[in-house]
Amino acid sequence: MNSFGRLFRVSILGESHGTAIGVLIDGCPCGLPLKAEDFREDLARRRGGIQPGVTARQECDIPIFKSGLFKGKTSGAPLLIVFENADLDSSEYERLKDTPRPGHADYTARLKYGGFNDYRGGGHFSGRLTAGLVAAGVIAKKLMQPARVEAKLIQAGGSADIDSAVQKALQEGDSIGGLVECAAYNLPPGLGEPFFDSVESLLSHAAFSIPAIKGIEFGSGFNCTRMRGSEFNDAIIDPSGRTASNHSGGLNGGLTNGNPLVFRVAVRPTASIKKAQETVNLLSGEAVSITVQGRHDACLALRVSVVLEAVTAMVLTDLMLLEQKIPRVIR
Amino acid sequence: MNSFGRLFRVSILGESHGTAIGVLIDGCPCGLPLKAEDFREDLARRRGGIQPGVTARQECDIPIFKSGLFKGKTSGAPLLIVFENADLDSSEYERLKDTPRPGHADYTARLKYGGFNDYRGGGHFSGRLTAGLVAAGVIAKKLMQPARVEAKLIQAGGSADIDSAVQKALQEGDSIGGLVECAAYNLPPGLGEPFFDSVESLLSHAAFSIPAIKGIEFGSGFNCTRMRGSEFNDAIIDPSGRTASNHSGGLNGGLTNGNPLVFRVAVRPTASIKKAQETVNLLSGEAVSITVQGRHDACLALRVSVVLEAVTAMVLTDLMLLEQKIPRVIR
Amino acid sequence: MNSFGRLFRVSILGESHGTAIGVLIDGCPCGLPLKAEDFREDLARRRGGIQPGVTARQECDIPIFKSGLFKGKTSGAPLLIVFENADLDSSEYERLKDTPRPGHADYTARLKYGGFNDYRGGGHFSGRLTAGLVAAGVIAKKLMQPARVEAKLIQAGGSADIDSAVQKALQEGDSIGGLVECAAYNLPPGLGEPFFDSVESLLSHAAFSIPAIKGIEFGSGFNCTRMRGSEFNDAIIDPSGRTASNHSGGLNGGLTNGNPLVFRVAVRPTASIKKAQETVNLLSGEAVSITVQGRHDACLALRVSVVLEAVTAMVLTDLMLLEQKIPRVIR
Amino acid sequence: MNSFGRLFRVSILGESHGTAIGVLIDGCPCGLPLKAEDFREDLARRRGGIQPGVTARQECDIPIFKSGLFKGKTSGAPLLIVFENADLDSSEYERLKDTPRPGHADYTARLKYGGFNDYRGGGHFSGRLTAGLVAAGVIAKKLMQPARVEAKLIQAGGSADIDSAVQKALQEGDSIGGLVECAAYNLPPGLGEPFFDSVESLLSHAAFSIPAIKGIEFGSGFNCTRMRGSEFNDAIIDPSGRTASNHSGGLNGGLTNGNPLVFRVAVRPTASIKKAQETVNLLSGEAVSITVQGRHDACLALRVSVVLEAVTAMVLTDLMLLEQKIPRVIR
Repeated sequence: MNSFGRLFRVSILGESHGTAIGVLIDGCPCGLPLKAEDFREDLARRRGGIQPGVTARQECDIPIFKSGLFKGKTSGAPLLIVFENADLDSSEYERLKDTPRPGHADYTARLKYGGFNDYRGGGHFSGRLTAGLVAAGVIAKKLMQPARVEAKLIQAGGSADIDSAVQKALQEGDSIGGLVECAAYNLPPGLGEPFFDSVESLLSHAAFSIPAIKGIEFGSGFNCTRMRGSEFNDAIIDPSGRTASNHSGGLNGGLTNGNPLVFRVAVRPTASIKKAQETVNLLSGEAVSITVQGRHDACLALRVSVVLEAVTAMVLTDLMLLEQKIPRVIR
Repeated sequence: MNSFGRLFRVSILGESHGTAIGVLIDGCPCGLPLKAEDFREDLARRRGGIQPGVTARQECDIPIFKSGLFKGKTSGAPLLIVFENADLDSSEYERLKDTPRPGHADYTARLKYGGFNDYRGGGHFSGRLTAGLVAAGVIAKKLMQPARVEAKLIQAGGSADIDSAVQKALQEGDSIGGLVECAAYNLPPGLGEPFFDSVESLLSHAAFSIPAIKGIEFGSGFNCTRMRGSEFNDAIIDPSGRTASNHSGGLNGGLTNGNPLVFRVAVRPTASIKKAQETVNLLSGEAVSITVQGRHDACLALRVSVVLEAVTAMVLTDLMLLEQKIPRVIR
Repeated sequence: MNSFGRLFRVSILGESHGTAIGVLIDGCPCGLPLKAEDFREDLARRRGGIQPGVTARQECDIPIFKSGLFKGKTSGAPLLIVFENADLDSSEYERLKDTPRPGHADYTARLKYGGFNDYRGGGHFSGRLTAGLVAAGVIAKKLMQPARVEAKLIQAGGSADIDSAVQKALQEGDSIGGLVECAAYNLPPGLGEPFFDSVESLLSHAAFSIPAIKGIEFGSGFNCTRMRGSEFNDAIIDPSGRTASNHSGGLNGGLTNGNPLVFRVAVRPTASIKKAQETVNLLSGEAVSITVQGRHDACLALRVSVVLEAVTAMVLTDLMLLEQKIPRVIR
Repeated sequence: MNSFGRLFRVSILGESHGTAIGVLIDGCPCGLPLKAEDFREDLARRRGGIQPGVTARQECDIPIFKSGLFKGKTSGAPLLIVFENADLDSSEYERLKDTPRPGHADYTARLKYGGFNDYRGGGHFSGRLTAGLVAAGVIAKKLMQPARVEAKLIQAGGSADIDSAVQKALQEGDSIGGLVECAAYNLPPGLGEPFFDSVESLLSHAAFSIPAIKGIEFGSGFNCTRMRGSEFNDAIIDPSGRTASNHSGGLNGGLTNGNPLVFRVAVRPTASIKKAQETVNLLSGEAVSITVQGRHDACLALRVSVVLEAVTAMVLTDLMLLEQKIPRVIR
């Protein structure tokens, strides 16, 4: 399914080198004011054109509202937001058609779809589609107020000096991974459901929909495997549920406990690099060394923060609707 | 929702100190032979009664088939499997009713359900309910053959010498966390869906439904944040998609690539310990120090492996049904 | 799927001659008082033991709460309600195993499930399972108050003199169909969703889950095909949306309009009759004439009203939860 | 939800006087050839411009494929098909904004969406959106081959002489209802699920998503209420399940039985008529008589057949995918 969410349901669509990409949102409360300007900042953060280390592709990041908006406010009908694609040169991808790029979905998509998939620029698997997620996130962030969500890159290539790490990778024609931390504040306690729809379950489900994420941890996360219970358990210090520490990341039994919700995701290095890579020609079976032309992100993680904020806001908005903490009509 | 899965749909029910716990499975292909004996080994692994470091609660782990089985085979109708609870002493939980135990769902469940939740032994949030997951896993493992899944504890308290680590925690009346690794073999390539239903999304969703899991990573996971693309990308070495390394954990673009699927989960230390812990009385607002009586798991992670196998098998069976790799009628 | 509902989700399970039948309800608001006594009247209406024309099978209609109830109130966890089956003689069904009874699911279930289905007494397709629907309905009716739903049989065998029509059919060893009318009052306006989740869509989906229903019509229903627009359109007579007539059955654009919601269902004659019927032996291919032993309902429609009320209440409760007209915690 | 279907999932979007209307299809098997020409005939049947008695609105019925199509075949990614709206004069709707038209969704939508809904031409509730359903139906009809579906108008205003009935209504500035019959042939037996996802449940759910439908009946339908069991039950005459009669409409126990699937829907008279109608001004509370300008359908039922075929094909395709009767990759 290319859809996610129970009450605030987001569907994603489009291909990297197709006509357009977009997002369809069903269940958005009505009465919420929306204008293109509201999307500018987050879309710019995702595009990341100014930073070194991110791809220079000139994308058309102007959200076009095709439905669901009336007199500048959400009407309660499904919201379709489309981003038209610029006309792109696909010759590189025609050339690489039968030699799947390591680290990409080229091989797996070809198998799954019997070769009928759009292989140009990753097709429907392209990171380009995260523009749609960001757009949905902008709306979700407005709905969940005064609760809010913030993500930032805290390490690149294992270093906190992110700029130099990225610069070095760029010079080498290589790429590096990164660590992104996300936190949500002012959440009502009791969001989430036991077992299958724990907040961890829903957030990780959403987070792994972002291409390139390979790990997620809540609160102390993997460190907790080395901790004792007496150390890990967060002492409750007042009847509002405030805890002295926050090793659990604001979650107990899969439900928000009123403390900040904190988690981190591991972003692998960008798959596309300038260096030659080994693969096979799927028709001839021969080993080949390929080099992918064009400019690439040296550190995809630079652009992940805003997408992670977006999917986090989507999940939390959905849960707040379920708990009737967001009304169906915004006035 | 207490349900998960699209075609092989598992619903969980019951409370720790209630009448019973159980699992309802809708969409199980018909014709699959099932008998109580098939469940014995996995249920014993979950109960873990023999190992040091796990709770001695005498649970009734005999699966009772209430529906969906006819002449020893699945009939195509919903399968209800129930585990009756033994009669338990709940006085301890009545005593602690207004002083939520740190690290447990006591506080969050009380808030979410306005105090109407069954607070005895964690109620519906209890790890006891994972017996139902294990039962569903036994069925899923049979369906997915010859594909198979295996999980094992590889570290406890940060050490590979698991026995001594657990022994030490036991002696101190404390608990420790652990690291569990899971792998699946012989999977058809192309399982999973782009974006929201990536294999990572679905597996993490399912894995975080297991209480006490605080992190998950696929392939190189968090290590990838320190790697370069030239190092991380797995070179493809033959047209069947075999790769020279497996940093991606058998997944590209969210789809299985035919190599082993590998991931790890972080299990936090058991919340219940013998040591005194700080909390508040929710009625009076006073700080109190509580000690939880009874025997407890020193290392919950010892019992997680089989539950993780179970939810992994559930997800993979669901995806194999979607791709028509498992028939609806087993002959 | 044997489940229905988005927020108040009902799953049905069991077989006619198996151990038990039952219903699992996920998403029921917590704090609702429930006791076995609350179910008695509706279960008795479904059983219909006193009326002439309904089967004398002595069913065990005592609801057993296996989970989700704590101190007499719903706890917010999934509610499992089970009805144990009495020990039944299945020899008749073994005898008829290969000669599918006309009008029953014998033939279709055998094909769908490759012969693995429980064929005794209709197995999972039996009307016996509607006891679970009635139980879910009892809960939904409580939740939706002060809105309420009422259904009654208005014709049997085409006659409003229902008693004599049933008596006559009984004497002839035959069965008759009937017409049941259902109405819901005090509904908030605006329930339902455009297009796929119109109130008509959801109610008909739920109503046709009741075995034996062959038609449904809202408001003037099939009569509207013979009406003019000037006659059919309901004039709006005050700002609260009250209309002079109710040809639309309380629905416009798939949404409730505040007037009574009215619809009717057509119930076909009971499939099991005393008269001989023509079928084939599926193994030999020979035409055979079968007679089904035992007592049967002469008019199934006598028992449908309460089941129709139940599924109607389920749907309306679900929509009222979606519109936040029913809280998640009942106090 | 503006979505329907489990494996072949259709989402509908747009407004009558907005930018566009459209349909998003998720789960369409890949490899299916599609071109605009394939849609022409069914879209023309829906528009019905040539027949007397249907509205003369010049709609732009050219399907624009925004995603999911690659080299003329479905790629396995979500298919977005958009129909741009022509620029329309909305002044009439501004004028009627506070005086809800009888028989329309004006009043109910206003209440549900707190006045934020697009009220121009019915907005998201407009019959215009059925163009999206028809497009989805064209695709579903291709996928389900050699099974096929056919619907036709069999009565208008209660008469089989449809042309004269429509002509008469037109002359009077009034409208009439109609009866549409739909049949599906060559269906594999065993489609459908017991109880909640019976074929009747799913088809009626889909059918009532078509605006103006007020009733549905399968096989003998409402006539069965006047029949005896000995008359209604269809004698099985050979081991392939063929029956001597087809009172059940090709369905037993909610599953297809291999005989033609037959049902009928009641279409109410078009709500928009030339005659004056009574309503109230919602702001002032005053009774007012309104006349709706423009040309209107005298008999909406003329256009319903093709939409009914479409939603029927959607449902059957979904069930055939579930039963693995349609592959995921079309070759």
